[in-house]
Amino acid sequence: MSTQRPRTPTSAEVARAHDQVGTDERRARVAWSRVLEPDRERHTATPSVLHTRVLALGHVEAWHRLADGDLPRCASARAHLPDVDVDAEMDRVTRVGARVVIPGDADWPYAFDAAGIAPHLVHVRGQGCLADLAQRAVAIVGSRASSGYGEAVARELGAGVARQGWSVVSGAAYGIDGAAHQGALAVDGPAVAVLPCGPDRVYPQGHRRLVDAVAESGVVVTELATGTVARRHRFLARNRLIAALSGACIVVEAGLRSGSLNTAGWAASLLRPVGAVPGPVTQMSSAGCHEWIRGHKAELVTDANEVLSLAAPIGEAPDEVEELLGPARPADAMTNSQRRIHDVLSMGRGVGAGTIATELVVPVEDVIGQLSVMQLDGWAVQDVEGGWRRGEG
Amino acid sequence: MSTQRPRTPTSAEVARAHDQVGTDERRARVAWSRVLEPDRERHTATPSVLHTRVLALGHVEAWHRLADGDLPRCASARAHLPDVDVDAEMDRVTRVGARVVIPGDADWPYAFDAAGIAPHLVHVRGQGCLADLAQRAVAIVGSRASSGYGEAVARELGAGVARQGWSVVSGAAYGIDGAAHQGALAVDGPAVAVLPCGPDRVYPQGHRRLVDAVAESGVVVTELATGTVARRHRFLARNRLIAALSGACIVVEAGLRSGSLNTAGWAASLLRPVGAVPGPVTQMSSAGCHEWIRGHKAELVTDANEVLSLAAPIGEAPDEVEELLGPARPADAMTNSQRRIHDVLSMGRGVGAGTIATELVVPVEDVIGQLSVMQLDGWAVQDVEGGWRRGEG
Repeated sequence: MSTQRPRTPTSAEVARAHDQVGTDERRARVAWSRVLEPDRERHTATPSVLHTRVLALGHVEAWHRLADGDLPRCASARAHLPDVDVDAEMDRVTRVGARVVIPGDADWPYAFDAAGIAPHLVHVRGQGCLADLAQRAVAIVGSRASSGYGEAVARELGAGVARQGWSVVSGAAYGIDGAAHQGALAVDGPAVAVLPCGPDRVYPQGHRRLVDAVAESGVVVTELATGTVARRHRFLARNRLIAALSGACIVVEAGLRSGSLNTAGWAASLLRPVGAVPGPVTQMSSAGCHEWIRGHKAELVTDANEVLSLAAPIGEAPDEVEELLGPARPADAMTNSQRRIHDVLSMGRGVGAGTIATELVVPVEDVIGQLSVMQLDGWAVQDVEGGWRRGEG
Repeated sequence: MSTQRPRTPTSAEVARAHDQVGTDERRARVAWSRVLEPDRERHTATPSVLHTRVLALGHVEAWHRLADGDLPRCASARAHLPDVDVDAEMDRVTRVGARVVIPGDADWPYAFDAAGIAPHLVHVRGQGCLADLAQRAVAIVGSRASSGYGEAVARELGAGVARQGWSVVSGAAYGIDGAAHQGALAVDGPAVAVLPCGPDRVYPQGHRRLVDAVAESGVVVTELATGTVARRHRFLARNRLIAALSGACIVVEAGLRSGSLNTAGWAASLLRPVGAVPGPVTQMSSAGCHEWIRGHKAELVTDANEVLSLAAPIGEAPDEVEELLGPARPADAMTNSQRRIHDVLSMGRGVGAGTIATELVVPVEDVIGQLSVMQLDGWAVQDVEGGWRRGEG
C-alpha cells in the first residue's frame, strides 16, 4: 500500500464503493480484504483500532462508514476505495481454483473465532474442507536454513501425525516446513499450507509443485488478496493463522532468531501447547528449540506420539457424544477434562495452572487451554494474581 | 560375601574382634568397612536396619555389640569378624597411596552428612582435598556406550566447568564419564573419580592411566574395602556418592536404561538439580536424557554456563562473607536466597516449590535444595501434602 499522502475519494468513487457491497457480508469482506491488511502485531490477539472497529460494527456497516469517511484512522484504507472491484476480485480468486470462505461457511474453521483471530476471509484452494482439517491439526514449523537431521525429523513427524489422521499445518517454506508437508503427503495424509501471499501466487515459487500437491488432498490457505506478494510483515501475520488452525505447534529446528519461533510465540499466546524437537547442542540449528525447552516455554518432543499427546485435548473428551445426548444442563456443559479441572479448583484461594497440571498429571498447556474455555463459560475465574478459582457457570 | 550359612565366631575370635577396635572411631569404621557393604537400595537415603543401627549406636559401640552377637540381623556381618585385621587393612590402604577419611577429618565432605549419605569411611587417593573439591562440584555422567557426539560434549562440559574452578565428579567409566574427566584434566582442572571397587583396584582397568591422572590433581574416592571388585550393586551404591558429592548432576548421553540415570535418580532424591544434554532424536543414545527433560525431572542444558547456573546456589549467596561477620543472629542465619524464599512462604497454607520458583524466577531445583536446608534450620516446614510453610527458625 502506498506510502504517499492518501488521497480522498471523489463523491462518485464513494457512491461506487457503497454499491460494491450493498448489504452483502461476503462482498463486504472481499472489499475489506483489498483495503486493510491483516494485523502485524507480534504475539497479540488484540487487533488494531481500525480492525477492532470493523469487527465491532460488522464488515458491511464498517464498509459504508469507511466509504463515508466516518471511521477513525481510515485514511489509508479509504484511499484504496476507488481500486476495489469485488466482482473482479472474486473472479480472480475463482480463476485460480480458490474459494472465498467467511464465517458461516462450512469451510470456516471454528478455531479462528475461538482464538480471537479474525481474518476478513480466507481464500481456500484444494480438495479438503478447512474446518474439518483444522479439527485435528498440528503445526510443524522450523527453519528454512535447516539441517539434514532437522528435515528428516520433520518428514518423520509429518508422516507420523498424518498417518493417525491429523493434519500437518505449515507454511510451505523451504526447509522444515516443506519437509513436514512432504511427510504428510508421503503417507497420503492431510496437509494445510498457509501462504504469505495472495491465492494467485505461490511462495516460495520453487515449492509450486509441493503446494499444488497439498491442494490435491488438503487445502492451501491465505487471507491475503490476489496479487499480494510475500513480505516480512505478511509472514508474521500468516504465522498467527498457522498457530490458530492447530491444536499444537511443534518447532522441529530453529536457530535463536528463527521466524518459526514467531509462530510458536503466536501458538503460546493463543494458548496452544508448544513442542520443540531437540538436536545436537553442538549445532546452532537447534539452539532456538533448546532455549524454548530450557525456559519451559515448549515441551520436548521426540516422535509423533509425543506430538499428538501434546495436541490432543485432555483425555480426548467425547464432545461429539455429549452433543448427541441433547441440550446440556449446566453441569453437563463441561467436558470430562474440564470437570476434572473444576474439581481441583476451590472457591477460595486461587490455584496456579501448574499446580492443577501437577495434580492431574497432564501438560500445563492443556490445563491453560481448558481454563480459558472454562473462563468463558464462567466455570473458572482468574484472580488478579493469575490464580484460578472455581466458578459456578 | 559368602552365601553359605553364616558360621558363628568362636569366643576367641569374638575377643580378638573387640581388641581390633577398642574405643577408636577410625579403627571401628575400618572394621565395619570389612564386614558391611554400602546400602544397595536405589534412590533412597533410608539405610537398611543394620546400617541404621550402626549409625544410631555409633561405629564403636555397634562394633562391640556385633562382636557379642547383640545386634539384630547381623549374622552375615558377624561371620566375617574373624577375617578382620584393621592394621593390615590400613596398611594395604596406605601402600596404594590412599588414606582413610572419616567424619571429623579435614578431608571429609560436609555433603555426605547434609545428604544423609553415610559411608563408614572413604578411601581417598590423590593430591586434592576431597572436602574442598566437593564445595564446588558438578557430576557429569552418562553412557558407557556413548557416541562421538556425546563424548565431545562431555569433554567440552568437563573442561568448561573445570575452567571455572568447579570439580568434575564422575565414575571414570568408559564413554561419557571418562570423557568428562579428560575434559577437566585437559585444562588442569579439578576432578573427582569415585570408583566401584577397592582403593587398590581400578575399574575399568583400561582407565588406569586416566584414574592416576585424576589423582595427580584431584582425588580418587571409594568407600569399599581393599580387594573389593566392581559388581553391579556396587555401581549403584557408588552412584549415590557421586550424586552426594556434587551440587548438580548432569547426564550427557544416556539410553533409556542407562546406569547414569541411576546416578541422576540419586541426585534427584538428594535434592540436587539434575541437568540433561539433548541430542538427535534419531539416536537412542540420548533417549534417556530426552525422557528426563520431557518429564521435567531434568533441566535441558547445552553448555558449561548453563550447567553452572544449575549447580550454583541461588544468587551464589556469600556464605563465607557472612561467616566473617561473627555469630549470626537468627534472621541473619539465612542466605539472601533463603531469605527471598522465606518471604514467599506463608504461615498458613502450604505452597509448592514450583510456585515459589515461578515467583522468584529461579530453577525449581534450586528452591528445593534451599528448602531442604531451611527445613533443617526450622525456617521452612513441609506439610503432609508436600507444600511448604514458613517456619520461624
